[in-house]
Amino acid sequence: MIPERIALLGSTGSIGTQALDVISRYPDRFRVDLLTAGNNVRLLAEQAQKFLPGTVVIGNKDHYQKLRASLGHTQIKVYAGEEEIEKVVADSKAGMVVAAMVGFSGLKPTLAAVKAGKNIALANKETLVVAGEIICKSARQTGSRIIPVDSEHSAIFQCLAGEPAGSVEQITLTASGGPFLNHTAEMLSQVKPYEALKHPNWDMGNKVTVDSASLMNKGLEMIEAKWLFNIDPDKIKVIIHPQSIIHSFVHFTDGSVKAQLGLPDMRLPILYALGYPGRLRSDLPRLDLNLQNNLTFTEPDMDRFRNLPLAYEAIRQGGNMPCALNAANEVAVIAFLAGRVGFLQMPEIVEYTMEKTEYIPSPGMGYLEMTNTKAREISTDYINKLSRQT
Amino acid sequence: MIPERIALLGSTGSIGTQALDVISRYPDRFRVDLLTAGNNVRLLAEQAQKFLPGTVVIGNKDHYQKLRASLGHTQIKVYAGEEEIEKVVADSKAGMVVAAMVGFSGLKPTLAAVKAGKNIALANKETLVVAGEIICKSARQTGSRIIPVDSEHSAIFQCLAGEPAGSVEQITLTASGGPFLNHTAEMLSQVKPYEALKHPNWDMGNKVTVDSASLMNKGLEMIEAKWLFNIDPDKIKVIIHPQSIIHSFVHFTDGSVKAQLGLPDMRLPILYALGYPGRLRSDLPRLDLNLQNNLTFTEPDMDRFRNLPLAYEAIRQGGNMPCALNAANEVAVIAFLAGRVGFLQMPEIVEYTMEKTEYIPSPGMGYLEMTNTKAREISTDYINKLSRQT
Repeated sequence: MIPERIALLGSTGSIGTQALDVISRYPDRFRVDLLTAGNNVRLLAEQAQKFLPGTVVIGNKDHYQKLRASLGHTQIKVYAGEEEIEKVVADSKAGMVVAAMVGFSGLKPTLAAVKAGKNIALANKETLVVAGEIICKSARQTGSRIIPVDSEHSAIFQCLAGEPAGSVEQITLTASGGPFLNHTAEMLSQVKPYEALKHPNWDMGNKVTVDSASLMNKGLEMIEAKWLFNIDPDKIKVIIHPQSIIHSFVHFTDGSVKAQLGLPDMRLPILYALGYPGRLRSDLPRLDLNLQNNLTFTEPDMDRFRNLPLAYEAIRQGGNMPCALNAANEVAVIAFLAGRVGFLQMPEIVEYTMEKTEYIPSPGMGYLEMTNTKAREISTDYINKLSRQT
Repeated sequence: MIPERIALLGSTGSIGTQALDVISRYPDRFRVDLLTAGNNVRLLAEQAQKFLPGTVVIGNKDHYQKLRASLGHTQIKVYAGEEEIEKVVADSKAGMVVAAMVGFSGLKPTLAAVKAGKNIALANKETLVVAGEIICKSARQTGSRIIPVDSEHSAIFQCLAGEPAGSVEQITLTASGGPFLNHTAEMLSQVKPYEALKHPNWDMGNKVTVDSASLMNKGLEMIEAKWLFNIDPDKIKVIIHPQSIIHSFVHFTDGSVKAQLGLPDMRLPILYALGYPGRLRSDLPRLDLNLQNNLTFTEPDMDRFRNLPLAYEAIRQGGNMPCALNAANEVAVIAFLAGRVGFLQMPEIVEYTMEKTEYIPSPGMGYLEMTNTKAREISTDYINKLSRQT
């Protein structure tokens, strides 16, 4: 069997390192063709020495010489710069691209991979949040298959296997509720960054961990689900399931419901995406149902966690609004982690930015980039104003 | 669209009447071609007058004249006798046979339908328990498709849709645990028939309700699952899930688990089997996850509920042992309902009968019928002995 070539975008992040963990378990099945990272040049060099891809790219050009020097004794081609990532991924011999970059920056390389007809294991949810229409249209044209790596979307994808078209009535995304599920509004206003970074179940990157605590993560996932599964947002519900064992539900038109379960371990959806349409045999830890003596479900509180209704509002408006929501949230999370704004000010920043964003109904990539830049300016100005007040 | 012709065997029982409820909701899609019943001539006549099948058969010949008289003004052909059911089902124009007869008596008509290449919506679990090997082999030869109607097997069947061959690692059948889940052995020994007939979640026939209370139902389902899904009994687990919301689990080789959920309503698996491979739109009551605030799972107690280990023992031995187990259990349940033996004597009767049954490794239908007859004699003698003691 000839190993399948994999391009891994964002190899030094949480998903990237876990993807390499999974890949390393199947040396006969997968071969790493390309690794890219934004800034973490030391880890990227280490990974390249271990996996010996044909090519590596570091996004931040300042690190080019260092990376080149570390890999000087190898045959690996070394490039630097965000725009190089796009070129190199399109030219890569990899049939499967794992898109694990964080935030808006993942969009252009992923689009390049879709345009080149690669299959995508998609971990970068912002790609579909910002440009779902463009990505899906392009994927239909090139035959690129998009397989979700988020645990919730992987769950839905698995439940949809073999099901007839038009048989989905509703999707329910499960949310752990994060560390502040039972916090009052007053307690939420006092939350410190280090508290938001302690997720009860999942071990993830900083951005998505804060998004989990604020439920923006579930809002982004709802928008992602709309595009992945071509389903009306009104038919996508969110439910709080603090145990994170059931990863999502699909409700069918006959009244039957299917769910996918597993331990909260991101390697599972990564493995599924890499092996699809097969299932790889793994020695990952197994779910023991006997230890699950209490699975609970409750409705999310849309008043305390305002990011969720804001996300529904953004996708209902459509156009460039989800892009504005995402940009404002990226800025807000950085400001929160830097201690510049409070936890409850994050949705305030997002809402303000959406209000001030000029609506564009069907934006191309140029307008999306413009919206992204503008929304970041609006959010930053607003944060500066807030900081001066305190 | 030409309606699909359905033959319904056992139309007056719990599954039979619910199947007619489902069928009546889709008058353009389904047409009843054949109805059969064992004894309930009044209901059979009523159903025939409503659904106007081409043919009806009453198993008990004593009721022939009465049935004929009730349907004298119609074009419906009327037959009587168990052996007539076999002939009529094989000759029927129905493409789909709903096998909803209870107990061993369902075996021969179902086999006749399989041999005639009909698709089977199988609610009669004893068919596969007793003659799984024969039925499966015959179905492979004729291309007859067997779609389970038991809620647990329907759940597994739904979870397996679209999954690659060889990807199943384990199956977990859920069991409500019945009305005596938390009874001590002493309490179990005092249980009265009317108590055993009160199932906490499901509205089913008497036989299956008692089997649920004694966990024999789960033992029979485990054997049924072995044949339906071609899986080793060691890989079939049973878990107590008193809420009866999750109907079963499939565990895959990658560590992922899928489950099917729904309200405890037999019309759902009936609907699925009739609509397969599609899903019919239904207005059956929907599962509201917000009302499910506590799903629990515990291991079954094999000491208090001895039917379950006996069923594992029967299928491990294979051959005619599951047939003996089933026959002894049918006799034991009738004796229990008649107040002749206690609740805990049922597994005793089954175990005794298995011990006294001469083992036949690969029995044909003749040997199975002989085993069935013999096992009933052994059980009956044993019950008579027990009765004399008390």
